[in-house]
Amino acid sequence: MPTIDEIAKLSNVSKTTVSRVLNNHPYVSEEKRQRVLEVIKKMDYIPNTSARKLRSNKTMFIAVSIPHVDHPFFARLMKNMSAEALQYQYKVIVFQTFYQKQNELKVVDLLKRKEVDGIILCSLENDWEDIKGYLKYGPIVMANEVHAEAEVPVICYDEFEAGYKGTELFIKKGHHSIAFCCDNLYSKAQMMRKKGFMRALSDAGLRFHDQWIFSHAFTIQDGFRIMDQIHSMTEKPTAIFTGNDQVAAGIIKRASHYQYKIPQQLAVLGYDNQSICEVTNPEITTIDIPVEDLAKKAIEAIIHLLNNKSVLKREVVTMSSSIITRQSV
Amino acid sequence: MPTIDEIAKLSNVSKTTVSRVLNNHPYVSEEKRQRVLEVIKKMDYIPNTSARKLRSNKTMFIAVSIPHVDHPFFARLMKNMSAEALQYQYKVIVFQTFYQKQNELKVVDLLKRKEVDGIILCSLENDWEDIKGYLKYGPIVMANEVHAEAEVPVICYDEFEAGYKGTELFIKKGHHSIAFCCDNLYSKAQMMRKKGFMRALSDAGLRFHDQWIFSHAFTIQDGFRIMDQIHSMTEKPTAIFTGNDQVAAGIIKRASHYQYKIPQQLAVLGYDNQSICEVTNPEITTIDIPVEDLAKKAIEAIIHLLNNKSVLKREVVTMSSSIITRQSV
Repeated sequence: MPTIDEIAKLSNVSKTTVSRVLNNHPYVSEEKRQRVLEVIKKMDYIPNTSARKLRSNKTMFIAVSIPHVDHPFFARLMKNMSAEALQYQYKVIVFQTFYQKQNELKVVDLLKRKEVDGIILCSLENDWEDIKGYLKYGPIVMANEVHAEAEVPVICYDEFEAGYKGTELFIKKGHHSIAFCCDNLYSKAQMMRKKGFMRALSDAGLRFHDQWIFSHAFTIQDGFRIMDQIHSMTEKPTAIFTGNDQVAAGIIKRASHYQYKIPQQLAVLGYDNQSICEVTNPEITTIDIPVEDLAKKAIEAIIHLLNNKSVLKREVVTMSSSIITRQSV
Repeated sequence: MPTIDEIAKLSNVSKTTVSRVLNNHPYVSEEKRQRVLEVIKKMDYIPNTSARKLRSNKTMFIAVSIPHVDHPFFARLMKNMSAEALQYQYKVIVFQTFYQKQNELKVVDLLKRKEVDGIILCSLENDWEDIKGYLKYGPIVMANEVHAEAEVPVICYDEFEAGYKGTELFIKKGHHSIAFCCDNLYSKAQMMRKKGFMRALSDAGLRFHDQWIFSHAFTIQDGFRIMDQIHSMTEKPTAIFTGNDQVAAGIIKRASHYQYKIPQQLAVLGYDNQSICEVTNPEITTIDIPVEDLAKKAIEAIIHLLNNKSVLKREVVTMSSSIITRQSV
């Protein structure tokens, strides 16, 4: 491969000019730029990216952490974030934490080691105290996940409102015994949703049962397990607010196996508005999350920080969810 | 941040020794190594990764290209590949081609620009002729996708066999009019599967109808569309071999809307053995793909090439699929 020296010689310009052309520096005449580019093309010169990165201090990578990609909500979020980032010439690297603190720390460590320019956390496994020290190395944006104090842009939707309005729907339909599923109560976002659920109950003067709160609800199989538990209870809920549509689909399937009438004997509310809602019998009434907006705003926030190098400050963008009415409530 | 000079001074060793410690070079006494590491820790020295990469010429990144992550089969494949690569200290960067040639070329270009150490292609959008020139910059492995000549490790399962045995199942059940779905006939893997389908038909002396081949079948919504088309035909198939379980779920749902009895009036075979198979009514009989094995062997293949820097040569690892019997056939 030719060196910068050789290219300078062949283009009849200085080494500095070649370097400026390689780095898109403005102070080069168009005539010289064209001459250098032609020589580069002819010689098949490949700028060494690591060397260029060393100079520019930019990797053009954004790391995004999610629990895991085999989850329809996060897969949709990733698809949209990647497409959005590409418009700014940034590439998204998807990292899966598998809900482990140490994996999340490896992701933020990429910022310290300058392997990525910025980070978007779509979940939060560690205490914020253990993350915030990394802010001195580069920008972090929180998307989908919320935290009460983190001094970073937080792009989320109103989980409290979603929890409240889903529960209210059941109450309006006459339900007094309402169960609730969540995947991970460590998540601040999920805690907010649960608070909305509890508030709606107390506003309606309804009590809640501890045994009607189901955690670790992620998959269709978890839906089967939860329905088995409900079926074995002496005092059963008549409605269940699930954490996602996969769980709702599992509950509906297993409930029809036990010959429950849905929604008459058991109303089931999904979450995420995934396409699976349309194939179950009955179809799933669910809460639609603004995934595309979430992805777009999160990328815009990190790009803004990367381009302006502005001081990181807290900013919370909260979007609304909406109920999609089908047949299961 | 302290420089290497300062660290050398404080540890009372030469700059060369500091550099050797940073690069895990063996020729440093244990006593000196400990002294340098202590100073580094005390001074909070962060080795510049780009500089280190420049020296070692390793990024510890593997780029994996898939059509898009919002597809349950590819999401599962990614989840398994990432977990497997982490065991070798490699990080997987997931790139989505969105079925576009130019996006795939951007991925292989990462190899030329030394931004990643190796590449795994899980689909192939370009002609191999347009990809193979990149082999001189680093290793490429093909996983899930096949190509008749590519001089790289190809980790796949036997799509011809899967196509043959799915079709044979229908024939054994007495079906003579069998339809076939595929997502993308450009894919060599899908062509093999279709060949298996055609061979099984001709071995049984059955003809096939051009209008019973449905392409661009990816999602539940595509299943709805295909079932609408079938319903409007004068001569209808009595069985349909779908390209994935999402499509099968859509077909089943729409078919029951039209009051078809499944499998009596229309048998439906899924593909991938996703969890959605267990929530439809009837449940989906499907073809189980060895995803975990595919992921494990693909990562092993690329790690082998990266570690041994052996000459790239063609090697095809073919795994078998199996039929999971439920209720839809």
